[in-house]
Amino acid sequence: MTWTTLHHRLDDGIRTVTLDRPGHLNAFTPTMAEELERTFTEVNDNDDVRAVIVTGAGRAFCAGMDLGTDGNAFGLDESRTPTLADMGDLDSPDIRRVRDTGGRVTLAIHACRKPVIAAINGPAIGIGATMTLAMDARLMSPTAGYGLVFGRLGITPEAVSTWFLPRLVGMAKALDLMYSADILDAEAAAAAGLVDAVHPLENLIEQARALADRWTAGRSRVATALTRQMLHRNASLQHPEAAHRVESLAMFYSSIGDGAEGVSAFREKRSPHFTQRASNMPQFYDDWIAATTS
Amino acid sequence: MTWTTLHHRLDDGIRTVTLDRPGHLNAFTPTMAEELERTFTEVNDNDDVRAVIVTGAGRAFCAGMDLGTDGNAFGLDESRTPTLADMGDLDSPDIRRVRDTGGRVTLAIHACRKPVIAAINGPAIGIGATMTLAMDARLMSPTAGYGLVFGRLGITPEAVSTWFLPRLVGMAKALDLMYSADILDAEAAAAAGLVDAVHPLENLIEQARALADRWTAGRSRVATALTRQMLHRNASLQHPEAAHRVESLAMFYSSIGDGAEGVSAFREKRSPHFTQRASNMPQFYDDWIAATTS
Amino acid sequence: MTWTTLHHRLDDGIRTVTLDRPGHLNAFTPTMAEELERTFTEVNDNDDVRAVIVTGAGRAFCAGMDLGTDGNAFGLDESRTPTLADMGDLDSPDIRRVRDTGGRVTLAIHACRKPVIAAINGPAIGIGATMTLAMDARLMSPTAGYGLVFGRLGITPEAVSTWFLPRLVGMAKALDLMYSADILDAEAAAAAGLVDAVHPLENLIEQARALADRWTAGRSRVATALTRQMLHRNASLQHPEAAHRVESLAMFYSSIGDGAEGVSAFREKRSPHFTQRASNMPQFYDDWIAATTS
Repeated sequence: MTWTTLHHRLDDGIRTVTLDRPGHLNAFTPTMAEELERTFTEVNDNDDVRAVIVTGAGRAFCAGMDLGTDGNAFGLDESRTPTLADMGDLDSPDIRRVRDTGGRVTLAIHACRKPVIAAINGPAIGIGATMTLAMDARLMSPTAGYGLVFGRLGITPEAVSTWFLPRLVGMAKALDLMYSADILDAEAAAAAGLVDAVHPLENLIEQARALADRWTAGRSRVATALTRQMLHRNASLQHPEAAHRVESLAMFYSSIGDGAEGVSAFREKRSPHFTQRASNMPQFYDDWIAATTS
Repeated sequence: MTWTTLHHRLDDGIRTVTLDRPGHLNAFTPTMAEELERTFTEVNDNDDVRAVIVTGAGRAFCAGMDLGTDGNAFGLDESRTPTLADMGDLDSPDIRRVRDTGGRVTLAIHACRKPVIAAINGPAIGIGATMTLAMDARLMSPTAGYGLVFGRLGITPEAVSTWFLPRLVGMAKALDLMYSADILDAEAAAAAGLVDAVHPLENLIEQARALADRWTAGRSRVATALTRQMLHRNASLQHPEAAHRVESLAMFYSSIGDGAEGVSAFREKRSPHFTQRASNMPQFYDDWIAATTS
Repeated sequence: MTWTTLHHRLDDGIRTVTLDRPGHLNAFTPTMAEELERTFTEVNDNDDVRAVIVTGAGRAFCAGMDLGTDGNAFGLDESRTPTLADMGDLDSPDIRRVRDTGGRVTLAIHACRKPVIAAINGPAIGIGATMTLAMDARLMSPTAGYGLVFGRLGITPEAVSTWFLPRLVGMAKALDLMYSADILDAEAAAAAGLVDAVHPLENLIEQARALADRWTAGRSRVATALTRQMLHRNASLQHPEAAHRVESLAMFYSSIGDGAEGVSAFREKRSPHFTQRASNMPQFYDDWIAATTS
């Protein structure tokens, strides 16, 4: 497996993915979209990985879509005239050329079984900003900027940001941020709820690793995956009963798996030793994911 | 077109709508409901308008439903016994007389293609408060009050406030505000997240205009309309994939419309000149609105 | 009616429910689940009750699931292999033995027609914490702790907390709280938005009663029930139109019931005297609840 736009590193269970086009401020390309989508899909079945950190090479996080390419700046086939009905089959060859590439990445992050942390080391603009909205936390260096700048270019929010953003900051702030289309400094981004913590650049990755450890070190990989997916999927249901159905299954299969060890360890006042693997989720998992994806 | 309860003014692309019954503290009537519903529908196809400001004439914003009229205080036909099934066809003549009039206004605001800003110059009580929840921002003068007072009258929240309010302030605060039914001063309303900014009365309209400019001056009317509708509609979907479908279409048609100009201007380091009109949305728009309204 | 794990008290319309296993720090058992589910169901038709307070006997609120019992710590039948499809009928005898017991309690709280206030007098751990997320407010003593500790035991969030928690604190904080699995002190719980107010232990119940009075004393029982259910149900709908339908019915039937008295009292500058009973909801109520439960 080779990566042309990313750098991958694995260290003590933490996969660090570096956007790696520093000569272009890590500008986003269709190839980078494919490689990120592949990254967040493959990590699910890699039991060596318990968490993912995303950061940028050099002085930028990601300066946005690479507008220096020829043709349609967003890699879209302008000969098409897609309708809403056409979008029904997202995997059809015709539609693949008109799908928002950023959304392919964030849908893969949404479906990921591992927590994902953004370590925003420098400017995060356009897709560089929106891709992080699907991650579990956004840490930012004081000198980085965060720009949902679509409005300035006459284009519209993408990477499913119209779904993710209001969940993080509420509707009033989401509208204001998208309409205003400003580049926020770290303080403003934190005040808006876009960013969860600001750390000096020299400690940023260390802090991201500490957070990954706080969330996943010594924890059940299966329970973590179920927790992540249940929060993302159940929170949007209309009535709590459907959430109760899947929580019951998650608790049932946890209680006879890692949970049995967890309870024993608690009773014996020792650290638990969890052994379930996220590559082998309880049997209801795939049915549930399929039933709640659309 | 004449208005009996409103005053309309258009100045540099900003439509200012003034609730104009100052002798009655701009109390809400069924006629005002009809005129507001018409306002927010007609503004969609008026390409001279890029944003809307709503304020009140005289010392009130809107003191609530006009309770001085004879018969049912809310303009409802008490001879009916509507059932949930009866509400299926909201436009049937029978049901029009039992529909909440405030909800007609806020549904029109929800469907509007232009940002809407409330400039709350004085007391906003009952429907005077809830109508603003559907708007994109609420600016308030320090001496105004904000009252979700339904509970004190033995009636229930209306104007679709049970849908809009939790999106702005979260569920715990929404419950507390509705149960408590207090009139909040500007400081308390801002602390609760009901109000986005407090400005002296003498600057209130100026500040509302500045915000409208920040959001819409020099921007693509079509991209703004799509952004507004995508945030309102996509944020409530159960899974991000459906949001991705429409974001893809919005980006596709933007990228060959105003977005092409926006990218060219960015590359050429000049201001963009956007020409698409919100009266002529991309072809998928009507299909999408119809598919996501219910 | 006898209670083996609870203590019930009724005083001036306020039902105080005390988790009453102080020798076990009020640890949660399947019997306590049944008694709580029954409590929140029966209170609906008890017109002597206008609000409910839940607190703990002795020094704990609820220390979590009682892990001292034999067999499956969560009372589940480990001989089963339930599938997602099996969960369709939650009341089937087979499924009752694999359903999350905490979820039975919080679904009953969700469906309750009376406001419910948690007076967290001491440690609230696991189900002791999650059961309060379905309540309308959480008051906490400065020395209590709040622990969503599931992750430490290799188990998953329950009591429909994956539905309730993001509504209270937003998605980023919900993920962080569940992954971190820490026990928060009162200050941290308030900062996270988990807790609405912190009061000294000696005043905690008094403050909970004051809040219950602020919300329900002298108010229409039917309007309060409709407000509670509309906020919980309408806020999660995809489009506001469905919320408008039920708000219209609620306003219609309020306006010819307690609302008529409320308007008269307002016009006559006197206190209203509301007489509708929550045991006898308007006819559309049951249809609506059935149509929006799943």
